[in-house]
Amino acid sequence: MDSFSATPLVVLAEQFAALPGIGMKTAKRLAFAVMDMPKEQAEAFAEAILNARSRIHECPICCNLTDAEECEICSSPKRDAGTICVVEGPKDVSAIERTHEYHGLYHVLHGHISPLDGVTPENLRIAQLLQRVQTGTVKELIMALNASIEGDATALYVARLMKPLGVKVTRLAFGLPVGGVIEYSDEITLYRALENRMEL
Amino acid sequence: MDSFSATPLVVLAEQFAALPGIGMKTAKRLAFAVMDMPKEQAEAFAEAILNARSRIHECPICCNLTDAEECEICSSPKRDAGTICVVEGPKDVSAIERTHEYHGLYHVLHGHISPLDGVTPENLRIAQLLQRVQTGTVKELIMALNASIEGDATALYVARLMKPLGVKVTRLAFGLPVGGVIEYSDEITLYRALENRMEL
Repeated sequence: MDSFSATPLVVLAEQFAALPGIGMKTAKRLAFAVMDMPKEQAEAFAEAILNARSRIHECPICCNLTDAEECEICSSPKRDAGTICVVEGPKDVSAIERTHEYHGLYHVLHGHISPLDGVTPENLRIAQLLQRVQTGTVKELIMALNASIEGDATALYVARLMKPLGVKVTRLAFGLPVGGVIEYSDEITLYRALENRMEL
Repeated sequence: MDSFSATPLVVLAEQFAALPGIGMKTAKRLAFAVMDMPKEQAEAFAEAILNARSRIHECPICCNLTDAEECEICSSPKRDAGTICVVEGPKDVSAIERTHEYHGLYHVLHGHISPLDGVTPENLRIAQLLQRVQTGTVKELIMALNASIEGDATALYVARLMKPLGVKVTRLAFGLPVGGVIEYSDEITLYRALENRMEL
């Protein structure tokens, strides 16, 4: 019996609530915000959603999201084609690019192997990676998957598949995060940091 | 040089970031979520925005948002037409309806008087309220504006305008919130609670 019985507003709030990390209360607030904005802005918002969905697709080489035929990184002559950094999702590419220290190419798997969620190797972009490695220009694959059980399992699966092709397979180092406090570190991180200790 | 150079994705993230309480980091996460959802869902999302904006308008009587010709509350014969609760926004109507204790009508001002932000009485739905009160069926106006300087000023302004018409003007009680701890209450709330003390 309040303004939320105005159905289009309920529908809009439910759409917001379907996004990750947005609860129903925030979703209602956002729906009201859409009502408060100038009409042109609301239309631009809707347009942006449709545009992103229709114009963005996976790069045929690295499977990252792009609106170009091939993504900027794959088509850049400045990148080292001998190294491919394998990641779970496009967000990981953004994160690694922010370091400004990696100059090779990427390969986005779009997930990790997780039989419980019905995700098998066939659901990931592993076949595309195999094809890239088989062309022969790739010298090293850096597995930059999340430090989770599924991430580790996926990295191992991919490594076992690629090694016979004569490519070097590495993975990100484990250890204390920069600024990390030993007292508050979990035991597995600490164990890995000890195991991978380096000479000063 | 990452997937965020895919312009439609940047545009979409910026649209999300324009919403209140959504920073650029969350906005990017939400933009990626839109890319992850089934295409039909993304289209339904865009549709929901356009639908809400085209079908929802202000009720000609109470100025609350509705998709009907007149809102459900105004058109309900069960509501007491002698009492109008004056609020700042549609969200306040939702909040008061949740108490299930109020059975009168509402009037949504769509803001509060705030000369610094360029909001004068003419920008609010005060003329519409005046018209409703002038019809003569209204006996009481309950000012349920926020307990801010602007809310108080708006309530006073409206009260001074309406009283000559012979209508009773009340406002919400101030005091300790239910479950409120005296130790942690601010002095103004405590002062108001003392001032409005009731006999047991």
